[in-house]
Amino acid sequence: MDKVGRYEFLAEPFHCDFSGRLFMGHLGNHMLNAADFHSSARGFGMKYLLGINRSWVLSRLAIEMTEMPTMYTKFNVETWVESAMRYFTSRNFAVVGTSPRGGQEEVVYGYGRSIWAMIDTETRQPTDIYSIDDGAINNWIVADKECPIDKGGRVKMSDAAELVRTIDTQYNDVDINGHINSVKYIEHVLDLWPLDWYRAHAVKRFEIAYVAEAHAGDQLSFYKESVADNEYCIRIVRTDGTECCRSKVLFF
Amino acid sequence: MDKVGRYEFLAEPFHCDFSGRLFMGHLGNHMLNAADFHSSARGFGMKYLLGINRSWVLSRLAIEMTEMPTMYTKFNVETWVESAMRYFTSRNFAVVGTSPRGGQEEVVYGYGRSIWAMIDTETRQPTDIYSIDDGAINNWIVADKECPIDKGGRVKMSDAAELVRTIDTQYNDVDINGHINSVKYIEHVLDLWPLDWYRAHAVKRFEIAYVAEAHAGDQLSFYKESVADNEYCIRIVRTDGTECCRSKVLFF
Repeated sequence: MDKVGRYEFLAEPFHCDFSGRLFMGHLGNHMLNAADFHSSARGFGMKYLLGINRSWVLSRLAIEMTEMPTMYTKFNVETWVESAMRYFTSRNFAVVGTSPRGGQEEVVYGYGRSIWAMIDTETRQPTDIYSIDDGAINNWIVADKECPIDKGGRVKMSDAAELVRTIDTQYNDVDINGHINSVKYIEHVLDLWPLDWYRAHAVKRFEIAYVAEAHAGDQLSFYKESVADNEYCIRIVRTDGTECCRSKVLFF
Repeated sequence: MDKVGRYEFLAEPFHCDFSGRLFMGHLGNHMLNAADFHSSARGFGMKYLLGINRSWVLSRLAIEMTEMPTMYTKFNVETWVESAMRYFTSRNFAVVGTSPRGGQEEVVYGYGRSIWAMIDTETRQPTDIYSIDDGAINNWIVADKECPIDKGGRVKMSDAAELVRTIDTQYNDVDINGHINSVKYIEHVLDLWPLDWYRAHAVKRFEIAYVAEAHAGDQLSFYKESVADNEYCIRIVRTDGTECCRSKVLFF
């Protein structure tokens, strides 16, 4: 089996924004699905892990796009494991389309980078990734495939960040673990800008670090800080004051 | 080509609720996609229509489920045109799964019914469906396939309906026409019940009539009325007081 997985998706009409471009949240969802399909087919997927009281936990996701697939476009999400350590694994993505001119040449829409931890579902503590099938994940590492976007890192924010919105979480925000769904955070962050902003701007890079889980019924408060031209940092804090996520958004 | 279209979908992890069942909004989205795939393959799809300044407009959708597909389940949405008149067409859906015991026998999860109008995209007025390719839609009618759920109709509400929530619409609510996305209304309606309600109840039937369009920036106010045991009617009103949708939800 190829070390790189490749999965086709369609930019569905209701998954596209007012300009006909795929919403970032849905692209993120496709990447997380691709990660799941890839790992499941190779013996270290979520379903298998849940059976042995382990689970992947998404720690960081960064997506950087040259352009977004437009409505009705078919595109592929490629994904592979770039590296694995005892407590973290790094998985990359490429979003590629068939050439509009046919032939071998492909359109690259953009790339993604993600960091995952593995936890024990009973203790909720990090566990050793290498303990799964004698470190079998090492058989799947692709160190030399290009992913020419910044790795990102800790998003630095000052005390100047302003509270710009507080929302109640609802039924549709909650995933099977009872946590606020990783994809919904992406939507809530990008909803901080009005539609008119998106008439003049598109998301070039979206980065999010998942720090602590929020639960059904938590209120989420969003603190926003402008750090450079068209570049913003966002901190999401749950009801009890704990920081849940930190995000950085760069617009064209 | 078969008059009935059949499209496979997967109950993706992030499209499932806390109990591992597919969210109604995502099922609605799959139905709308199936309608689009079916009509496009048969010469009367949205893409073709937009080229001649016509568009399908969803007027009503009713979904009634015996059970919801659970996480990672593959299922099929079948769709067909039940009848066509000059200004409205009626399209049905069946949600069917492969038998868990193999063989021919299928699991039926539930059914859907929808009513569509066709409009002129310049005048926004209803236009004659039969004018498309000399009434070619009549070649695709399947009058005898079973869809054993109530057709629904005008949702009756009294003045007793209470204002239960007002929300701001955001960037992720808006579709390519600049209108609030039909699927998002489903999510907003079902978000009116807290997660705890869903621990004891599941949606048996969801019905929505799209009356007038709301736009980016509109506030939506939700009026709710209990009409029978586990049965609720909801009216959605936009900022200027115009009613946008009326919905009815029946829970198990």
